[in-house]
Amino acid sequence: MQALKVYRGAGRTCPVPIAPGLEIGGEEIIVMAGPCTVEDAGTLFKTAEAVKRSGARMLRGGAYKPRTSPHAFQGLGEEGLILLAEARRRTGLAVVTEVLDPRLVEKVAEHADMLQIGARSMQNFPLLVEVGRSGRPVLLKRGMAATIEEWLLAAEYILSAGGERVVLCERGIRTFDDYARNTLDLAAIAAVKEKTGLPVVVDPSHAAGRADLVPRLARAAVAAGADGLLIEVHPDPDSALVDGRQSLSTGAFDRLMGELAAIAAAVGRRLRQPASRNTTGQRQAGAAAS
Amino acid sequence: MQALKVYRGAGRTCPVPIAPGLEIGGEEIIVMAGPCTVEDAGTLFKTAEAVKRSGARMLRGGAYKPRTSPHAFQGLGEEGLILLAEARRRTGLAVVTEVLDPRLVEKVAEHADMLQIGARSMQNFPLLVEVGRSGRPVLLKRGMAATIEEWLLAAEYILSAGGERVVLCERGIRTFDDYARNTLDLAAIAAVKEKTGLPVVVDPSHAAGRADLVPRLARAAVAAGADGLLIEVHPDPDSALVDGRQSLSTGAFDRLMGELAAIAAAVGRRLRQPASRNTTGQRQAGAAAS
Amino acid sequence: MQALKVYRGAGRTCPVPIAPGLEIGGEEIIVMAGPCTVEDAGTLFKTAEAVKRSGARMLRGGAYKPRTSPHAFQGLGEEGLILLAEARRRTGLAVVTEVLDPRLVEKVAEHADMLQIGARSMQNFPLLVEVGRSGRPVLLKRGMAATIEEWLLAAEYILSAGGERVVLCERGIRTFDDYARNTLDLAAIAAVKEKTGLPVVVDPSHAAGRADLVPRLARAAVAAGADGLLIEVHPDPDSALVDGRQSLSTGAFDRLMGELAAIAAAVGRRLRQPASRNTTGQRQAGAAAS
Amino acid sequence: MQALKVYRGAGRTCPVPIAPGLEIGGEEIIVMAGPCTVEDAGTLFKTAEAVKRSGARMLRGGAYKPRTSPHAFQGLGEEGLILLAEARRRTGLAVVTEVLDPRLVEKVAEHADMLQIGARSMQNFPLLVEVGRSGRPVLLKRGMAATIEEWLLAAEYILSAGGERVVLCERGIRTFDDYARNTLDLAAIAAVKEKTGLPVVVDPSHAAGRADLVPRLARAAVAAGADGLLIEVHPDPDSALVDGRQSLSTGAFDRLMGELAAIAAAVGRRLRQPASRNTTGQRQAGAAAS
Repeated sequence: MQALKVYRGAGRTCPVPIAPGLEIGGEEIIVMAGPCTVEDAGTLFKTAEAVKRSGARMLRGGAYKPRTSPHAFQGLGEEGLILLAEARRRTGLAVVTEVLDPRLVEKVAEHADMLQIGARSMQNFPLLVEVGRSGRPVLLKRGMAATIEEWLLAAEYILSAGGERVVLCERGIRTFDDYARNTLDLAAIAAVKEKTGLPVVVDPSHAAGRADLVPRLARAAVAAGADGLLIEVHPDPDSALVDGRQSLSTGAFDRLMGELAAIAAAVGRRLRQPASRNTTGQRQAGAAAS
Repeated sequence: MQALKVYRGAGRTCPVPIAPGLEIGGEEIIVMAGPCTVEDAGTLFKTAEAVKRSGARMLRGGAYKPRTSPHAFQGLGEEGLILLAEARRRTGLAVVTEVLDPRLVEKVAEHADMLQIGARSMQNFPLLVEVGRSGRPVLLKRGMAATIEEWLLAAEYILSAGGERVVLCERGIRTFDDYARNTLDLAAIAAVKEKTGLPVVVDPSHAAGRADLVPRLARAAVAAGADGLLIEVHPDPDSALVDGRQSLSTGAFDRLMGELAAIAAAVGRRLRQPASRNTTGQRQAGAAAS
Repeated sequence: MQALKVYRGAGRTCPVPIAPGLEIGGEEIIVMAGPCTVEDAGTLFKTAEAVKRSGARMLRGGAYKPRTSPHAFQGLGEEGLILLAEARRRTGLAVVTEVLDPRLVEKVAEHADMLQIGARSMQNFPLLVEVGRSGRPVLLKRGMAATIEEWLLAAEYILSAGGERVVLCERGIRTFDDYARNTLDLAAIAAVKEKTGLPVVVDPSHAAGRADLVPRLARAAVAAGADGLLIEVHPDPDSALVDGRQSLSTGAFDRLMGELAAIAAAVGRRLRQPASRNTTGQRQAGAAAS
Repeated sequence: MQALKVYRGAGRTCPVPIAPGLEIGGEEIIVMAGPCTVEDAGTLFKTAEAVKRSGARMLRGGAYKPRTSPHAFQGLGEEGLILLAEARRRTGLAVVTEVLDPRLVEKVAEHADMLQIGARSMQNFPLLVEVGRSGRPVLLKRGMAATIEEWLLAAEYILSAGGERVVLCERGIRTFDDYARNTLDLAAIAAVKEKTGLPVVVDPSHAAGRADLVPRLARAAVAAGADGLLIEVHPDPDSALVDGRQSLSTGAFDRLMGELAAIAAAVGRRLRQPASRNTTGQRQAGAAAS
């Protein structure tokens, strides 16, 4: 299958540029953080500023939400996109947000720096073609029951349609296990990097579905060689409209970033330190993580 | 369920003593390494000496092997136990080895420092009772389709029978995934530590079934808070009688130990450095791991 | 959750009308048969006539195919729809075919009697809304890793958008099992019927991925209470462009229909007999099935 | 692998004799019914007599129970065996019961006609060897995460140890599905029959874990070609000490047997009718099953 575009560069991650001074897959591990869903301007801007201070390089947040029930809150739609763009203006963070509908790719691409394809859409082939055509970088989440090969062939759809910038995102697979929402499959990082040159980021928040499991999984992902992390953060998780149970508070996120920076250094990578961190921060991070 | 013995000490790992100066669950992360199966004296002693030099604290190796087919090599049996005991005498490494049959618990306990219950035996209740009665520390692997609760209740069988020293071992679960033998479930470390005070070690070799995935998984396990690792090492993996495909060479194991020591430090733990490591070793380990 | 539309009529299947004289969920078990993919006029018409003679009431066949790889044959598109409509004109069989893209719902609805939502699209929410708005009956396949609740909430999307005629289709779930493509979950029929009044049909062809397993699964589905079957049939399975490995030959399909009619009678249902069947046909079917 | 004993006779089921006039794998489908666990003499005898009247040919019931928790009721042990033997004397039903411990095989074999190896013991190799040596027929349940190949190799252990009479039992596999205890894998019947000549029976009670799903699964199993069924029946399911939730009442079992006899006839097999059934019983069964 070496003739497929997705298999190019196997064994050697090729960085994907997202915005000036920002690439995924290089020496720096990129953290994308923010609320599950854009709820209102105040909460979004507050979260964006907090995660920026803690070292996040990108802002995540859903404007169009894939909800299991049609009667659940479906996101703010275009209003959410506008708020995300405004949060970018205020903080300088690049924005990644999900697109669900091929008819909305153009609109989402206007506002976002990176388009996210969610797990449920991994084999939504018309959507993959549209995001490929958009020219935007794409974050392609693994389907909840997708094999590595199926995931890479989904990436091939985007590459074949002209999208040159694809980043994969492992977010847990569905298994018999019942204590967490999904089972995070960190060996997938190695398996993907052997077969392709695409960067791989990890979403411990959706994998776990429980905030208490997120820090250990995030640390493990960095140690396993992830090129980035996608983490849900909310200033007040208990009041979040969607998925509060899996969101870290801004304080917990700040502590986690210190721990992650220490592990990144141990594996020869960089990860932006929280602004709160003093010069002996790395050592404290280590102690805090035990 | 707080009345069960296994739930005592939830949230605070209680170290399990194995031998003088050796405990699992304390500040030091304990690496157990060695061949899948004891094959012959020469190979075993060579492996034991090599893993000792690289920082392993315990020797693993199978004398009685649970093989899917009755026509596959079933291990050397008692002769294997004697060789393991001799390897301990030569190296000072404590020995952990599997017992499959309740009628053989006493014999295995004579020779081994720690009894291993394999994944296939996790719900072999008569066996759990016998190892509990033996008084030896027990390494209890998670069954390939066991929930966390079932795993903890298997530990409860050992504790109820009088075994006070139980260490859990996550070794991957069976899922739809087909590129690795199993899916390593690192979130289980956090889930177990919240519910119990038992130490948890991780076996990346059986989880992956492929040597190339082992280093990243081992690093991830340390970052996620594992109290130890169980790693298959063989001086010549290609010639191993059993599971060579998943064994690290002694050289690859030595490099990995350096990487693991760096990550252990980053999370506020210790892990014995390879003897080959000079005083600036930790920094080099970090670079090597990228 | 009894306020949701999908939970109406739990425990009492409410027939869904498809075309004059044709409903799914009544006393008659409806068999939908045909090729995986529409390949050319000659093969399609030949298959349609053969399955009609064998007792099928509907013709299945893909014009737009969801293919794992972008480089695989994607179906004939609109030309395939026109051929399906022509096959209906020739045989009187109602047509069910898949739609993948919300922008194509209107076009597919022009030509087909029933719109199929494939397993990969079960949570393609914009698509569910469009097929709901189309007014056509919808065959909603279960996602390969979907729980019953997720499946029913996907149906709720269609019902909430105005689609009143939804039929569910169990087609196997993804498990660790490796000898068949998927694991057919026949208990889902009972679970669905307890919670909802929607008819349930079963697709043994995609569940098995192997023609040799299809007859036993089809028989089991009828005995378990399925309201219909979706079966791949090809006049020359070895030459099929897509999924020939799981297609029955027209001869094997004819034999199967006789067996199914006997089982249908045993559970108090009807299933159209093959025209080839003489008056003692049912007894022979029983003998043939052993 | 055709040299293995287990692969002999592939494609042609070879009947296994259990007792005079009783074999599994012939034209007659054998139903084994009884309580999950032997609780007391009165309940056992009452159940045995009831299932006998309904057409069961064998009595099932646990004397030694594999319980997830050590603090749960573990069965009556030898007293349970004696009660089972007495129930056989009273009813003429052959007895199948589980053995968990290799040290107890001889004792269980004294009292039982057939030894059951439970799902948790499928890869308990010392136990497989002992039951093979016992000379008794063995009912080998599939492990909850066992592949077909692993299951057949477990049978090979028994055959290699001298056991010539092995019957396989499909009882559901563990999947992500959460509405039933396990997912019954009926395609396994076909897969096993292609590879081996061993009879296959199905246990819908443990597969479902819910009595309401049992009848449809039992009917499906007969239609799929099962050579027998293992069904939990209790005179008063709500008061059962173990697994009452999945037990049929004696009345529900009697109705089910009528339905099963009708389906057996439709697939060219026989299944003993309930004594309550009059000469027009088969037709009524059909109607009742709809």
